[in-house]
Amino acid sequence: MKVLSINAGSSSLKFQMYEMPEEEVLISGRFERIGLDKAFYTIKYNGDKIQKEAELKNHGVCVEILINELLENKVIESLDEIKAVGHRIVHGGDKYSESVVIDKDVIKTIEDLSSLAPLHNPANLMGVKAFMKKIPNAVQVACFDTAFHQTMKEDRYLYAVPYDWYKKDGVRKYGFHGMSHRYVSERLSELVDKDYSNVIVCHIGNGGSISLVRDGKCVDTSMGFTPNAGIIMGSRCGDIDYSIIPYIAKKRGLSLEEIDTILNKESGMLGTSEISSDFRDIDEEIAKKNKQAIMAHYLFVNSIVNYIARYYVELNGRIDAIAFTAGVGENAPHVRRMVIDRLSCLGFKIDREKNDAIRFGKEGLVSAVDSKIPVYVIPTDEEVMIARDTYRLSNCE
Amino acid sequence: MKVLSINAGSSSLKFQMYEMPEEEVLISGRFERIGLDKAFYTIKYNGDKIQKEAELKNHGVCVEILINELLENKVIESLDEIKAVGHRIVHGGDKYSESVVIDKDVIKTIEDLSSLAPLHNPANLMGVKAFMKKIPNAVQVACFDTAFHQTMKEDRYLYAVPYDWYKKDGVRKYGFHGMSHRYVSERLSELVDKDYSNVIVCHIGNGGSISLVRDGKCVDTSMGFTPNAGIIMGSRCGDIDYSIIPYIAKKRGLSLEEIDTILNKESGMLGTSEISSDFRDIDEEIAKKNKQAIMAHYLFVNSIVNYIARYYVELNGRIDAIAFTAGVGENAPHVRRMVIDRLSCLGFKIDREKNDAIRFGKEGLVSAVDSKIPVYVIPTDEEVMIARDTYRLSNCE
Repeated sequence: MKVLSINAGSSSLKFQMYEMPEEEVLISGRFERIGLDKAFYTIKYNGDKIQKEAELKNHGVCVEILINELLENKVIESLDEIKAVGHRIVHGGDKYSESVVIDKDVIKTIEDLSSLAPLHNPANLMGVKAFMKKIPNAVQVACFDTAFHQTMKEDRYLYAVPYDWYKKDGVRKYGFHGMSHRYVSERLSELVDKDYSNVIVCHIGNGGSISLVRDGKCVDTSMGFTPNAGIIMGSRCGDIDYSIIPYIAKKRGLSLEEIDTILNKESGMLGTSEISSDFRDIDEEIAKKNKQAIMAHYLFVNSIVNYIARYYVELNGRIDAIAFTAGVGENAPHVRRMVIDRLSCLGFKIDREKNDAIRFGKEGLVSAVDSKIPVYVIPTDEEVMIARDTYRLSNCE
Repeated sequence: MKVLSINAGSSSLKFQMYEMPEEEVLISGRFERIGLDKAFYTIKYNGDKIQKEAELKNHGVCVEILINELLENKVIESLDEIKAVGHRIVHGGDKYSESVVIDKDVIKTIEDLSSLAPLHNPANLMGVKAFMKKIPNAVQVACFDTAFHQTMKEDRYLYAVPYDWYKKDGVRKYGFHGMSHRYVSERLSELVDKDYSNVIVCHIGNGGSISLVRDGKCVDTSMGFTPNAGIIMGSRCGDIDYSIIPYIAKKRGLSLEEIDTILNKESGMLGTSEISSDFRDIDEEIAKKNKQAIMAHYLFVNSIVNYIARYYVELNGRIDAIAFTAGVGENAPHVRRMVIDRLSCLGFKIDREKNDAIRFGKEGLVSAVDSKIPVYVIPTDEEVMIARDTYRLSNCE
């Protein structure tokens, strides 16, 4: 059965088509600069990657092009073969603790949740609506970034702000990257081969979050009300003293919107290093002994270590394994090593050789034989999680 | 030698007079509602506590009354006996890493730092100026709340915001409660009887902060750019996702100033419990099984445990002792127990009986004999620290 896995942003649309339940990727690609000039799309098929320019007026046009490409490349012979389409939706609020088949009510709820994710939910819905129109016979499924974290208890997700902000306006910790944390924690549980396992997942990419997962259920996560909280990220500040905001607003005459943008897009590694939001650029400068790059890197590692320490204690030391995933987590052995070295008092120990060898999409153990707690690298795959949920839910219909 | 220890706020002024170096408190008291109606002051002397109404137009009037009381009660026979006056100053920025004798330059610097502490520094200076005028021959000493934390390294005190905010506008972690953390960490080092010791100090009162101190030097602390960050407090929110601010501003049409006030005065335990900012009131409700009070209490304990876990790992487990101090830390055995119970995987273990017995200003060990790390209660004494610094610096003059 053929299933599409879709991640739609306001000006981009990524897709993978799977043969399910085999989880074979038949074709994948992305549309870029939708609604803008110089729009284009790329397609990976049969080991080739092609890029084409096209006028991408809106998401609907992208779906049309996608269908044509599927037919032309003979991935499908007719539209009816696409039985289901799964969509990544950023915010499910506290309404959704798992993926759901999309109907009118679901669309309404996702729209209602847009005040919590004003940039993402409306963009995600553009994708949903375009596919509903162009492939009306397929089951459409919503897979929420927040759903996996809905198992957090009140004493983890509440902030010490007026309770009324929570009750009336939904101010609480939601957590994000849920599909990734779920994928990696499930895979990690397989690897440690226990029916019941407590794991810490470090999803560290340009955005980053760390989750504590007990027996498949999220206990706590580092991102908060929004994806701006938690560990230091490429361009996001992570945890800060909120009082910086009223101070800097006054000092520099900046509006709240301007400050929010700076804390989102000009902070994090970019802000402290004054080099780049890309960890690879910072690593290049570290090699040249650039002091500010080194300092930014220490701050970054500290912020990761802090969360792992918290989560270790949170389950009273009963942690069965830890995993690194996403861009930095999968490809930066030195970051993994620095983090694990700092955790030696908790019984973690890296195997330098193994660790250095695991990069570029490889999965594997990177801890030493005498590490009390095993450390793995597990390449994440949010797309296949969407495909799995979509396959399962469309078969229940 | 007689030394005054002063803590001046905008509408209050607390004082202690010490005989130094014996550290004997000769007389103490406080002026309340300065500049307001129904002003009064209280004095503790010779075991008695008296309260008098008085028109307290400004801080100068308070100092005059104070001098008269000292003379009338024969604590001093002439003003010349007061050799030195030490003042608590909230913000020393990165200018002061220890207490200093006040001169014109120091006053100017404290004024310049007022943008970092707009409510506190100007009020503290009102006290300084009143005493300089009324007791011109005494040495005046400034003791900063931030000074003790100036030993923090860059990778602990920087936020991942634009570096320029730090360089040009001083946005960094400063830390507060410095006189208390210094007092307690020094006392704790005496108690564990090591020349070199690593300790964690939990100052938990209506405001609260936790510090990691290595060999007498602060390594890290939970308060940040302002005293609003870190653990959950009586009415302050502690660490939150900053993005709550732009969201709630839009949602409720609140100004940045209004939100700041709410996060300072209507959040923390008050905000979550919707009962009170006073921990005793919340405890009463917990006894009645009030669910929201219980939940607020869990949140509070979590926030303390998180910092201790971080700091334990920060020094790679080489922690020699931990101390609780201030209102809650000294008087709430159940909070200490809940925190220490949660840290059992790190080798902490409470002795319930000993712990229950230590309250109301008592000092003592509250951990079990087989606790890997000893846990103490140490009543804090910021006033005597001010007196000590003031005595030392005035003798150097």
